[in-house]
Amino acid sequence: MLELYGCKTAYLNDVEYIEKIMLEAAQKAKATIIQQFFHQFSPHGISGTVVIAESHINIHTWPEYNFAAIDIFTCSEDMDALKACAYLKLALEAKDELISSHERGNLARIMSNE
Amino acid sequence: MLELYGCKTAYLNDVEYIEKIMLEAAQKAKATIIQQFFHQFSPHGISGTVVIAESHINIHTWPEYNFAAIDIFTCSEDMDALKACAYLKLALEAKDELISSHERGNLARIMSNE
Repeated sequence: MLELYGCKTAYLNDVEYIEKIMLEAAQKAKATIIQQFFHQFSPHGISGTVVIAESHINIHTWPEYNFAAIDIFTCSEDMDALKACAYLKLALEAKDELISSHERGNLARIMSNE
Repeated sequence: MLELYGCKTAYLNDVEYIEKIMLEAAQKAKATIIQQFFHQFSPHGISGTVVIAESHINIHTWPEYNFAAIDIFTCSEDMDALKACAYLKLALEAKDELISSHERGNLARIMSNE
């Protein structure tokens, strides 16, 4: 999970730019892009998903707060999510970021519920 | 975040069923559906996103582990994410679930980076 603070407002409301940098972020992470969908809200804000073979990369922007929340969900150890994070911070000219990582799927629980 | 363990295998590989229950889950949560996208992987597994006005609902399934990971991302306090979780557990006949909730966007950081 990536939170980007103090982003350049205009970028956060430019759906073409957001789509472009999200696809570039996926490429930089070495993800295999399957399909993407981006939606511009009125009066402002963008939601976008890039479906990748490894799971998904997602963004929601709040131009009114210069804030963007991004999820990078991967089931591949070959993907470099941190590279995508660094690229997105740069591309949105964010002043500050918060990165957290969350394991999904507990193996013991999977085994005991098969 | 919802993790569902011990789900019925056949459901996790049935893209039409997964799309149907994800849309129903969105409705039960009182979300406003904008668009959905579902992808069937070969030999197995499904990824799906429902873009909602309130953000998104997402699923990845691993039929080989009877496991599904679901994200319900909302910026609305009127949405009832737990209702969607309960419905999805029932619809996938999951034996066990794990629900965790994560706040996105730190207000103090937003304010100090405007």
